[in-house]
Amino acid sequence: MYDCAIIGGGPAGVSAALNLKLLGKNFIWLSTHAVSHKAALAEKIKNYPGLPDVSGDGLVRALLSHAQAMGINPVEKFVSGVYDTDGSFTLTAGNDNYEARTVILCAGVQSSAGIEGEEGFVGRGVSYCATCDGFLYKGKTIAVLCTDKSFEHEAEYLCDLAGKAYVMPLYADYKIISPNAEVILKKPSRLSGGMRLEKVWFKDDSVSVDGMFILRGALAPSTLVRGLETDGAHVVVDRACRTNIAGIFAAGDCTGRPYQYAKSVGEGNVAAHSVVQFLAENK
Amino acid sequence: MYDCAIIGGGPAGVSAALNLKLLGKNFIWLSTHAVSHKAALAEKIKNYPGLPDVSGDGLVRALLSHAQAMGINPVEKFVSGVYDTDGSFTLTAGNDNYEARTVILCAGVQSSAGIEGEEGFVGRGVSYCATCDGFLYKGKTIAVLCTDKSFEHEAEYLCDLAGKAYVMPLYADYKIISPNAEVILKKPSRLSGGMRLEKVWFKDDSVSVDGMFILRGALAPSTLVRGLETDGAHVVVDRACRTNIAGIFAAGDCTGRPYQYAKSVGEGNVAAHSVVQFLAENK
Repeated sequence: MYDCAIIGGGPAGVSAALNLKLLGKNFIWLSTHAVSHKAALAEKIKNYPGLPDVSGDGLVRALLSHAQAMGINPVEKFVSGVYDTDGSFTLTAGNDNYEARTVILCAGVQSSAGIEGEEGFVGRGVSYCATCDGFLYKGKTIAVLCTDKSFEHEAEYLCDLAGKAYVMPLYADYKIISPNAEVILKKPSRLSGGMRLEKVWFKDDSVSVDGMFILRGALAPSTLVRGLETDGAHVVVDRACRTNIAGIFAAGDCTGRPYQYAKSVGEGNVAAHSVVQFLAENK
Repeated sequence: MYDCAIIGGGPAGVSAALNLKLLGKNFIWLSTHAVSHKAALAEKIKNYPGLPDVSGDGLVRALLSHAQAMGINPVEKFVSGVYDTDGSFTLTAGNDNYEARTVILCAGVQSSAGIEGEEGFVGRGVSYCATCDGFLYKGKTIAVLCTDKSFEHEAEYLCDLAGKAYVMPLYADYKIISPNAEVILKKPSRLSGGMRLEKVWFKDDSVSVDGMFILRGALAPSTLVRGLETDGAHVVVDRACRTNIAGIFAAGDCTGRPYQYAKSVGEGNVAAHSVVQFLAENK
């Protein structure tokens, strides 16, 4: 049982991890990528105090090397669910489960909103994890929504497993080479089916599928944690970074604008301190 | 008329200034010291993400040089009052006044609480500014509360002006050399008088004075801004760093715990963004 599980490898996650480490807590830090992919893309960051004119990549390297110097590294996992289990939380990530007394959500904000109908088919045709669920669709027909080039190797893996794969890359310079792949340059608008997912709809037409993989950085917070209070795409938190669920905290872009590195590291720090206070009060 | 006046030269103030500059606003940045004296005293800061194992002095230098590289420098002034003047604010600092449409308070939290009776004698014997009011007490008897060694040159200046000065240093390695000075190693507990300040009390005894200078980094927020909602020593703010007074924002230690550099720069960033939004909505 960990004291805390941090979900997200961006600036908020790094800051939370540094502080939990310094505060002597036993935690696991889970991130889809080894480090924030989004931050690394920024060309020039002029307002991260103390690191003038740093590139996105430079900031990410500075944050990671700070964490590594303190012996902390994120574990590369895609967390697909957080479940309240009687005073603690169970996180599912691929075939692994993690138990933690508290959770800090800092997986960023989704640039792509969920698809209409998506939530209803999670576990019934909709999957977020190629390596966890890919084998279920061997030889079958699947859709693969690839939100970012960094997921392309997972898309390729799924194409090779499937009999046929409709791949929808949401970026320009895609390179899908699997002979099983058919690239569709449209964004899915709706999912439909009965007990299981059957069709992926675009504006006017649809494709029939046995399953769909949605490859993106993180789930919408409301999908990840049932019962979490959100306001649009954002998790509602108070000034101590507490959510409406006791023991679950949130920090960084997922809590709302401004989407700023300084705000993220500040909230990661605050959330870590709130976790320590919560643990002391709930022994 | 400035778009904004930032009060405080610590990490929150630097972050607010960087962002207002980048956002193209016309602002003045006022600070008692050229740079946060408190931050510079920290031996080792391990949780400012991206600057591992930085000294307090090193962090302060990094923050200042970041600001300077962007052409921003704090103006060394002690702000003694913020007054609401019909849709904008007037700040008094020594003999100068500044007009601004918005204010960001980030002058830190007072380690020393106010003295009983202090608020009632402001302008009637109690002063916070040696260079502004010192000449009023030429040849007279004054008390000088010196909270920090960095104010010692102001204390010396006052001693030389006065006929007699009771100096109370709140630190160990004081060095008061003026022949007019009598050092008292007790902390004043209460101020009393009629229309003007007459006595400075310690636990059991008192000294009679014509005036008293209280030399510390900043006023308590409730003294600085009348009508500001506070909770103990802290300014009450929402997640956008808005106070109860429209147009006044607060960031950093003054808004409450945890007292952390990362939190301060995060809030300075948020407050600057909130100022820009406020200016757009209140043209």
